[in-house]
Amino acid sequence: MTVPKSVELTADDRLLIIDQTLLPNQVVFLDIRGREAMVDAIRRLQVRGAPAIGIFAAYCVYLLALSHASLSGADFQQALRADICALRSSRPTAVNLAWALERMDKVLRQHKNEDPARIIPLLRQEAKAIDDEDAAVSRIIAQLGEPLIHNGMGILTHCNAGWLATSRLGTALAPLYLAHEHGKDFRVYCDETRPLLQGARLTAYELSAAGINTTLICDNMAASLMAAGKIDIVFVGADRVAANGDVANKIGTLSVAVNAAYFGIPFYVCAPCSTLDPSTASGKDIVIEQRDPEEVRSLWYSQPMAPRDINICNPAFDVTPRSLITGIITEKGII
Amino acid sequence: MTVPKSVELTADDRLLIIDQTLLPNQVVFLDIRGREAMVDAIRRLQVRGAPAIGIFAAYCVYLLALSHASLSGADFQQALRADICALRSSRPTAVNLAWALERMDKVLRQHKNEDPARIIPLLRQEAKAIDDEDAAVSRIIAQLGEPLIHNGMGILTHCNAGWLATSRLGTALAPLYLAHEHGKDFRVYCDETRPLLQGARLTAYELSAAGINTTLICDNMAASLMAAGKIDIVFVGADRVAANGDVANKIGTLSVAVNAAYFGIPFYVCAPCSTLDPSTASGKDIVIEQRDPEEVRSLWYSQPMAPRDINICNPAFDVTPRSLITGIITEKGII
Repeated sequence: MTVPKSVELTADDRLLIIDQTLLPNQVVFLDIRGREAMVDAIRRLQVRGAPAIGIFAAYCVYLLALSHASLSGADFQQALRADICALRSSRPTAVNLAWALERMDKVLRQHKNEDPARIIPLLRQEAKAIDDEDAAVSRIIAQLGEPLIHNGMGILTHCNAGWLATSRLGTALAPLYLAHEHGKDFRVYCDETRPLLQGARLTAYELSAAGINTTLICDNMAASLMAAGKIDIVFVGADRVAANGDVANKIGTLSVAVNAAYFGIPFYVCAPCSTLDPSTASGKDIVIEQRDPEEVRSLWYSQPMAPRDINICNPAFDVTPRSLITGIITEKGII
Repeated sequence: MTVPKSVELTADDRLLIIDQTLLPNQVVFLDIRGREAMVDAIRRLQVRGAPAIGIFAAYCVYLLALSHASLSGADFQQALRADICALRSSRPTAVNLAWALERMDKVLRQHKNEDPARIIPLLRQEAKAIDDEDAAVSRIIAQLGEPLIHNGMGILTHCNAGWLATSRLGTALAPLYLAHEHGKDFRVYCDETRPLLQGARLTAYELSAAGINTTLICDNMAASLMAAGKIDIVFVGADRVAANGDVANKIGTLSVAVNAAYFGIPFYVCAPCSTLDPSTASGKDIVIEQRDPEEVRSLWYSQPMAPRDINICNPAFDVTPRSLITGIITEKGII
């Protein structure tokens, strides 16, 4: 199945992303140059989705290496390592970001006594490999998850884990794209996913553009659809999977999982192995990013929708305990 | 405790409401005249909250009776009955609306052979009684619920069931106002309550204006606060309570209840007896109002936040089964 790419390095080394903050009203491609714009694109969620952030960051390291090409070997290493630090700190929870940057850093370390001119092509190759491997992972997750989908099913998803979030088919949405390609007839309900509305803006856009029967709901409506028997299975992505199987994913995932368990509905997490973080023992150890309160109070609105001086809590992620998860679909199999 | 009134009949028979669609940015009082404006005020949620709708509708019947004062007895009865029908159909789920209109209709029926001039003062008196009784009910619910609140507690509420929704202190918020008056120290988390944002716009406004420590969250964040041990008790209102104890309330209540049960948190519904509907056997028999999809797609936003042609499901209420409810606090005691 052919879908667009949300992050692309062109043959002439331009790094293009779809500005996800403008969807679905405008489809704008940005040509991202310079460290500041790169960090900002991650922080502002112009590029988002754990795998896509990793791919993007890897290409950023390559482009920044290019910009340092005239430096001496030691200065090159130092400048690029500072860039990697800056990119790593742009979003704390998504483990793929740190993982992809670590792969790039490793190339740098392994060739620390070599010329920038020798190292730069290796960095390009590593970034491309991260991208290609992710596309391959999407295909395998699609193949493993697709048999769980049957004609007539209602499928719930939260946030966005489709092609916008990854290199190719996505994670949580990959099985859906493959089932649709196989001619299966099903309906997808997507949570709008407050406050950033990734479900309304991105998932609804992706799925309906692909011709999949899609219905948008507010996050707080999923339970009533489950109670009405309209949801047969849940697929979500993951930002980080702890060693014990607890899953950090977009805020609201926990509530979906608790409701799915209550109503006896299978709940699957689709996650590449790069999302698994053996250094984190359990969900309790995952640092949860707190984001700007204005995302809740005023973002997207024509005027603020809450009193000016109100306290606002805005965690970007929550942790779903493994006991609520039916299975984690990875490229190595279903755990 | 003195709080403003969201619905008020003045001494010179003007019916004033706070336009709840404009809060919290503007506090505008509307002088509602004529059947069309009355039905529209209910349908557009300029007045909302089960008890407030009932009180408002009762005053509407009185004002419409005044406008028919010059008709003959039979024509008066017929015209006013048509008005009652129109008001009743403005929102199907809120049982207080039908209940208050039935009380007004009963006055009409009991005096069907009498002059309009004789009936009109009786209608005013009945509407005032509905208003006063609701204020008394709020006070009793406050007194019954207040002992459940202790220093240091985190309290979650959904939608708006405070003074904006009722004659006086509210239902779900009444115990909170009384506990605050008694000097108890607690923190309230309020769900923003998509798509109409009653929590962000109204509850956050009400509670912070009263000096109560209030934190706004998106609906999908409640579970993560529960998991973090920050919620000790939940108070919500009700739009209709079925004979078996199932509760219809604002969409999202079911999800809160399922999560509260999972995390072992007491879940209380505060509802006047006028919300109890013995003619509805169970939640399955409650008709759920489906509202305009644009409330999800474009309302409040500076531009639409979902694709133009996407399917949208927008139920106004859901049904929480009695098994998930710790207690229903009514003016007759805790059930």
